[in-house]
Amino acid sequence: MNKHSLEHYMETYKSGLLENILPFWIRHSIDWEDGGYTFCLDRDGSILDTDKGVWQTGRFAWMILTLYNEVEQKEEWLKIGLHGIDFLEKHCYDEKGKMYFIVDKKGDPIRMRRYVYSESFAAIAYAACFKATGNEHYRDKAREAFDLSLKYNSTPGLIPPKFTEHREMRGMGVPMIGIVTAQELRQNLNDDSYTEYIDHWIKEIRDYFINYEYQAVMETVGPQGEFIDHFDGRLLTPGHALEAAWFILREAMHRDHNEELIRLGTTMLDWMWEIGWDKEYGGIFYFRDVLGLPVQEYWHDMKFWWPHNEAIIATLMAFQITGDQKYAAWHKEVHDWAFKHFPDPDYGEWYGYLHRDGRISVPLKGNIWKGPFHIPRMYFMGWKICESILNK
Amino acid sequence: MNKHSLEHYMETYKSGLLENILPFWIRHSIDWEDGGYTFCLDRDGSILDTDKGVWQTGRFAWMILTLYNEVEQKEEWLKIGLHGIDFLEKHCYDEKGKMYFIVDKKGDPIRMRRYVYSESFAAIAYAACFKATGNEHYRDKAREAFDLSLKYNSTPGLIPPKFTEHREMRGMGVPMIGIVTAQELRQNLNDDSYTEYIDHWIKEIRDYFINYEYQAVMETVGPQGEFIDHFDGRLLTPGHALEAAWFILREAMHRDHNEELIRLGTTMLDWMWEIGWDKEYGGIFYFRDVLGLPVQEYWHDMKFWWPHNEAIIATLMAFQITGDQKYAAWHKEVHDWAFKHFPDPDYGEWYGYLHRDGRISVPLKGNIWKGPFHIPRMYFMGWKICESILNK
Repeated sequence: MNKHSLEHYMETYKSGLLENILPFWIRHSIDWEDGGYTFCLDRDGSILDTDKGVWQTGRFAWMILTLYNEVEQKEEWLKIGLHGIDFLEKHCYDEKGKMYFIVDKKGDPIRMRRYVYSESFAAIAYAACFKATGNEHYRDKAREAFDLSLKYNSTPGLIPPKFTEHREMRGMGVPMIGIVTAQELRQNLNDDSYTEYIDHWIKEIRDYFINYEYQAVMETVGPQGEFIDHFDGRLLTPGHALEAAWFILREAMHRDHNEELIRLGTTMLDWMWEIGWDKEYGGIFYFRDVLGLPVQEYWHDMKFWWPHNEAIIATLMAFQITGDQKYAAWHKEVHDWAFKHFPDPDYGEWYGYLHRDGRISVPLKGNIWKGPFHIPRMYFMGWKICESILNK
Repeated sequence: MNKHSLEHYMETYKSGLLENILPFWIRHSIDWEDGGYTFCLDRDGSILDTDKGVWQTGRFAWMILTLYNEVEQKEEWLKIGLHGIDFLEKHCYDEKGKMYFIVDKKGDPIRMRRYVYSESFAAIAYAACFKATGNEHYRDKAREAFDLSLKYNSTPGLIPPKFTEHREMRGMGVPMIGIVTAQELRQNLNDDSYTEYIDHWIKEIRDYFINYEYQAVMETVGPQGEFIDHFDGRLLTPGHALEAAWFILREAMHRDHNEELIRLGTTMLDWMWEIGWDKEYGGIFYFRDVLGLPVQEYWHDMKFWWPHNEAIIATLMAFQITGDQKYAAWHKEVHDWAFKHFPDPDYGEWYGYLHRDGRISVPLKGNIWKGPFHIPRMYFMGWKICESILNK
């Protein structure tokens, strides 16, 4: 990758974020009437469903407050961030302090789930809000949300298991989201005590999910990392593993280019690029079976927005750290494929759901799962990584 | 449809059932070692996952015992049916008498779900077993399973709702599966008292799920049939509605060609054919939005085996009852599309999961959702309907 292409990518990410992605969501998703954000939007930004996803609420508040903290202290961004934070505080908790998964337009609860990812995304939103405002209330809220998700994830039985004791499993989601949540809290609360959690979760991934025999990052394993030879145990999610890879590479940079973490992160990237990249049509597969067998998830070969966001960050960051041109080449491959197929030239933002060959499956811009998170985070990080390489 | 084509279809269904579909499952799915059946099979019948789905266990026992009762009293079929029934009785109940969703090869429980469809499919299996053996124990087991599912579905709160009291919903699955379960018990237990339940569920469908404004069979509505203008409330499942349509048409025949039921069943068929048939590529869509908006389920346009099985039965039965050539034409359309794309010429049986244009997505023959049920039931019913028309 030469200076010219770095400048090109930097400009693409920067202007894309500030002139396309962010304006789309600011224009269409803020509910000034009932509070919070409305993410279930059609292609042109019109509302498909007024329900409000709690994950996305925390994520968008985190994103826009992070831009406020790191890019420019724009009053509008702070106001929009606080608008979501207020909604989280007012409407997204049950009487026991656990957070909902979906609330309706007015903020009445619609659905609770067993998991505590709403809490993780709220934690990073509060932490960014503390950084933006200096108000200690948000620091306390961030800690409380982090501690709650910790408690649920580490207390057996508190999250009712989907499967019986005859099939005990652990999923990579918990350590992976744990790492990034702790990284955000460490930075924005300026509190290095979160490093100990990061160590714990990186060790969990290394000990249990890295499978040298299959050269794969497993998604679901037994309690001691045992291979589970069933549909669920064989199922790989390359986008997930690539995302975890850059969380670990970022940690390596934070620790003064820690060699061991660089090796771990690039190994995860190397393996899952090999498994996840579609050599026939391009793009990142959603699911693969580690033994190459048919998966139970029949839509396995679709191309979703977010694995491409995560692959773009992971390859660019691996290039930044190692200087290996292999990663520059992979970055170009996934960047080109994604920018050819996902962006909507007419209404802005990205489509989320493509068929294997890149044709659009559903043209919507947002739903309970897709909101302003993976896409703007990728534009933001891509911009900053390019800038950092150029400034060296 | 003329005599020649009726004979052709009859022969296709009869020989397909007896020489292709049934032998595939008899050869590959019986676990003579640990009991029950293994349904998670690859294209060639080799085992992909040794877990055993309880739905499919009841369904296959029902199917093969029904063939024993209605086609030929083959000892092998009785033996295989009892083999599944024994496994259900020994391994598929928890300590409170509720049935599991998945058990493992040895019969140890793996997953319980909130719903009671395992019980409905067990009920029809036991009823067919009573008819086959005359053993009153199975009559009692059938009644018990039916009553349990009735209790769970009619006692508020016994099935923990997915959504809060702010979004009360009723789904068509309950009355629809209720109708066919009661029809089977009425017939095989020779007990007309089940007719009262059928009346109740047909009324529920007519009062709440038939939407004249949109000319659609709704899948999810409010407690009084209210339209729910959210992703879930707008989502239609044409295969489901076509299946419910022929349950009702079958009831019309049972009631001496009851005109009102014929009108209801054919209306459901007419509307959902219009909505569900893919005019561009052929085949039946999995999901549609009643307002034509994007759905949240991104794999909405895939072509699954079972909606095609149900559409073939529904159109053929509608032709049988009404003599309307429109239904013969629709039957030909869906029969031709299905037989062109689903059957595996090399290893037999049908693929289950195709892309919109008919290309294969995953080549497996069975999993937790796909087993010997919709396909052999369609072959069996198609054969018998053609035979009945020809004999008139």
